[in-house]
Amino acid sequence: MKLADKTCVDFAEVLASKEPVPGGGGAAALVGAIGTALGSMVCNLTIGKKKYAQYEEEVKGILEEAGEIQKELLKMIDDDAENFLPLSKAYGMKKDTEEERKLKEETLEKALKQACEVPVSIVKKSYEAIKLHENLVNKCSKLAISDVGVGVQCLRAAIISAQLNVIININSIKDENYVSRVKEETEKLVKDGTEIADKVYEEVVKALSK
Amino acid sequence: MKLADKTCVDFAEVLASKEPVPGGGGAAALVGAIGTALGSMVCNLTIGKKKYAQYEEEVKGILEEAGEIQKELLKMIDDDAENFLPLSKAYGMKKDTEEERKLKEETLEKALKQACEVPVSIVKKSYEAIKLHENLVNKCSKLAISDVGVGVQCLRAAIISAQLNVIININSIKDENYVSRVKEETEKLVKDGTEIADKVYEEVVKALSK
Repeated sequence: MKLADKTCVDFAEVLASKEPVPGGGGAAALVGAIGTALGSMVCNLTIGKKKYAQYEEEVKGILEEAGEIQKELLKMIDDDAENFLPLSKAYGMKKDTEEERKLKEETLEKALKQACEVPVSIVKKSYEAIKLHENLVNKCSKLAISDVGVGVQCLRAAIISAQLNVIININSIKDENYVSRVKEETEKLVKDGTEIADKVYEEVVKALSK
Repeated sequence: MKLADKTCVDFAEVLASKEPVPGGGGAAALVGAIGTALGSMVCNLTIGKKKYAQYEEEVKGILEEAGEIQKELLKMIDDDAENFLPLSKAYGMKKDTEEERKLKEETLEKALKQACEVPVSIVKKSYEAIKLHENLVNKCSKLAISDVGVGVQCLRAAIISAQLNVIININSIKDENYVSRVKEETEKLVKDGTEIADKVYEEVVKALSK
């Protein structure tokens, strides 16, 4: 059974357990999907309202993109679990002989890179979803403005959480080229994404305090 | 069917729709439950490890408290939906005559207060769960340290998101005593909770950069 097809209650329960999956990566993907869904909700509550007719086409475009990202992030819950299991196994490998030590090291290096993949993708998708919220915040129904704030807060948590899962893996990877490429791919997105999320949140707070 | 018993995929789908529930409040409760579950996972990965035997009793205590909070936050997904529906109905009431106007105003005031209740509780429970992570961060298996970071990031999103749902409701409440009481109850928890979450996250990043 797929993790994404578990009920919310059961997902939380297995997350809380010592089972190897889901872990922080799967949690980040789900929280990112929830944040993205809130953006879609705000689009759906805006579309069809006369007051926002001038933004209608753009909001429809945001809704379509958010729907795609939500689907991808939900899929990443299980992709991350699948990619983590080889690492979980590799940690358990014997290293009594020189040969075993070498095999374990090689298997670990490969498994660590594999475990990095999905968290890197979660960083990218969360960044895209944060940008959609940035675009949406001034074009949406003011009745739903608080949900834009909730959306970016969830996505902020998702992008930072995914990055933590990148870091814990690359810390053990020996291939320096790989490590610097992954850092380059993610660090700027996380920095910019967090800043944009904070800016959008401040706009929401300002709108709510009027 | 309870919202918390929906699959993760279906929850995200109905959240993204224009259905009145779940909204930002339910999302905050779920994200808070996920953050709390990560704390429990870290406890479960620490208990039984010789290296952390000196903290074993305390970590078991954290696990027990976190389990309670997780259960309560998951329940709040549906409590929030139930408490929001009267407000959703009240907005649709007629106000053609003076009598209707008065009835709508009174019904709205009551419904707004009811809609505030669960977000206030989410603020409180998220704060408690953040404090548990603060207690856990220096007593847990270093192999799971990144998950403490993911846990507090989710809880940070949950507490701020719940507060947004408090604000959007109290903005329309006329009873000034009620408004100032709710503000008093939540503002300090959100400020302190966010600061503690940021501090715990920084400790995680420091531990990961060693």
